[in-house]
Amino acid sequence: MKIYADNAATTRVSDTALAAMTPCFQEFYGNPSSLHTPGQLAAEKLAAARAIFARNLHADPGEITFTSGGSEADNQALRTAAALGEKRGKRHIISTKFEHHAVLHTLQALEREGFEVTLLDIPPDGVVTAEQVRSAIRPDTCLVSVMFANNEIGTVQPIAEIGAVCRQAGVLFHTDAVQAAGHVPIDVEELQVDLLSLSAHKFHGPKGVGVLYARRSVPLTTLIHGGAQERGKRGGTEDIPGICGAAAAFDEACATMEQNAAYLTPLRDRLIAGLTAIPHTVLNGDPVRRLPGNVNVCFEGIEGESLLLLLDEKGIAASSGSACTSGSLDPSHVLLALGRPHEVAHGSLRLSLSHENRPEEIDYILEVLPGIVSYLRDMSPVWDELETGLRPHLI
Amino acid sequence: MKIYADNAATTRVSDTALAAMTPCFQEFYGNPSSLHTPGQLAAEKLAAARAIFARNLHADPGEITFTSGGSEADNQALRTAAALGEKRGKRHIISTKFEHHAVLHTLQALEREGFEVTLLDIPPDGVVTAEQVRSAIRPDTCLVSVMFANNEIGTVQPIAEIGAVCRQAGVLFHTDAVQAAGHVPIDVEELQVDLLSLSAHKFHGPKGVGVLYARRSVPLTTLIHGGAQERGKRGGTEDIPGICGAAAAFDEACATMEQNAAYLTPLRDRLIAGLTAIPHTVLNGDPVRRLPGNVNVCFEGIEGESLLLLLDEKGIAASSGSACTSGSLDPSHVLLALGRPHEVAHGSLRLSLSHENRPEEIDYILEVLPGIVSYLRDMSPVWDELETGLRPHLI
Repeated sequence: MKIYADNAATTRVSDTALAAMTPCFQEFYGNPSSLHTPGQLAAEKLAAARAIFARNLHADPGEITFTSGGSEADNQALRTAAALGEKRGKRHIISTKFEHHAVLHTLQALEREGFEVTLLDIPPDGVVTAEQVRSAIRPDTCLVSVMFANNEIGTVQPIAEIGAVCRQAGVLFHTDAVQAAGHVPIDVEELQVDLLSLSAHKFHGPKGVGVLYARRSVPLTTLIHGGAQERGKRGGTEDIPGICGAAAAFDEACATMEQNAAYLTPLRDRLIAGLTAIPHTVLNGDPVRRLPGNVNVCFEGIEGESLLLLLDEKGIAASSGSACTSGSLDPSHVLLALGRPHEVAHGSLRLSLSHENRPEEIDYILEVLPGIVSYLRDMSPVWDELETGLRPHLI
Repeated sequence: MKIYADNAATTRVSDTALAAMTPCFQEFYGNPSSLHTPGQLAAEKLAAARAIFARNLHADPGEITFTSGGSEADNQALRTAAALGEKRGKRHIISTKFEHHAVLHTLQALEREGFEVTLLDIPPDGVVTAEQVRSAIRPDTCLVSVMFANNEIGTVQPIAEIGAVCRQAGVLFHTDAVQAAGHVPIDVEELQVDLLSLSAHKFHGPKGVGVLYARRSVPLTTLIHGGAQERGKRGGTEDIPGICGAAAAFDEACATMEQNAAYLTPLRDRLIAGLTAIPHTVLNGDPVRRLPGNVNVCFEGIEGESLLLLLDEKGIAASSGSACTSGSLDPSHVLLALGRPHEVAHGSLRLSLSHENRPEEIDYILEVLPGIVSYLRDMSPVWDELETGLRPHLI
């Protein structure tokens, strides 16, 4: 059996998305900036895609900017808020310790440029509170950036509450909704979000397309200078096939969100129950306030990487955390922020499901995983020490 | 007849490129950063695409960075050279007056940050000389950026000579090869280029994919912060379908370059001869040192935009200049730099051919165009004044 359980890393392009893209490669291939008919047909497709994102986010089309992905959207959002803050002499930014590196590394760059950054601690349940945000806001705070759902542990943050706190304090609020978009409802008005980033390939759209929502009152800082595309805020010929595919995928994801969640939640919970039944195994993040498809556990005494390789041999594609940092030997910054000790964080496994996963795949995972964990523990000198009492069990 | 003669704006995706992309949407859809088999299959495709670009540019794969397009590659190239210059106290940049806005607008941003920019004048033939570059170099020059071929008038610059001047002076040399790549041979070693940008959708590859070549000795500045993708120099999940399509298109364009040029050059020259036979019409740019598919003329006494609309009615998709600036009422900065007066620059027409254009399309264009020009001139009060001697003819 081949099981793809790494949908938080990327997803298969849906039939709907592909059908929207296909005619754009060889038929409607014009440059939307061109005045002629092929150009105007492309411009119409661009406008329609923009309207789809606007409608599903409860935004205006003029508030939607297409980017090359979630990372670019995150970078542009933070740069925008920082530039606006700088103009008013406000150089303090609040974010959290478990943001994606697209946010954390941009914040580090801003720190080198003189901004001060407060990273909020992550409570043990993986859910930041609005009160934490409120306490951190200072007179010189220009931005709060809190991700909508964490990419590793899937916990969903109280975005509406944080939005209300920010609005009341007159501070811009950005949320990296890369993992949330298409999976949980997003209404930028209700949530009082000023800037929001999303990425199409996380909801069965194509890679290479992101969206930056920016409230009309927030003038974007240009990250990529060039032509007059995207109201002069993002140079570069628009990727019409990708954008059309992204819009079709988002429309489909939003329309089927409830039914997908209803389908996925019991599968997720069955996986969580089965995995945490393995001794010395702990679920990472709140069991309820998490994305419908996210499972993330730590097995004591094993290395996540070895686990992944053995799962792969069994046909199961999973991850130990973010794909973006694989290759690194450091344990996940998310799990460390959550308070897991280094040696525990190393034994993490993320299984991220989509509606394309079948119940029998869950059966198969639960059938093979306990054996693999036992096998790895039997080979592990650390496990030996844990079992003989030379080392204390941490979980 | 439907004729697409705006291939400098964008091109139709080739069958070869599409065939390379198709399996990546639903079959090889893994994230190349993932450790599992689907991820590693994607990583292999990414490596193969990188190798194709490296081979055709005579570079090493480690010198190839994928971006979201030519504009991003231009931005990152200039930012890179500026950052390196700044470290050594060198804050002077040389470029030209007819660069693409992705370069000009980034240079303006750098000026606001304290850099000094010298923009070289454009000789009447549209070909900058190495001597101009040599004369402009100062002890504090950190970068020379001269485009390989101009996007409006198609003139090809003496890149090897400029490269030699820069190398001798110890100044980094960037060339925006967006219009040249896939159309003229590029050997970064022979040309002594340090940084080079290209865009896939200009040679029948997909939109949304660019390449930044950077010599191994030139450490890139990160424009989009995020994960460890592209050796940590460009965050964001790689657009594997797009990148595979881009590589296939580039490989094909390079393999068929000579035969395409041999096919296109006489078509181009036939168009030029036919159009310049219309009274008070002038070719923009050198007749020989230009891209094989580029025709750019100015008709006195008419507005380029009206001409485009009438051509469009006849099924001919053309442009008056860069698609990226359409919507602007200003005349082309390229034609102004070339010395065309405002009123002449307004009457420009660019026809950009690809090997997909057929000889009978040229016949058709030459059949309908003179009539349209006459029609527009007949309606034009300016033409009236020119013909009655109230205004002097400028061409």
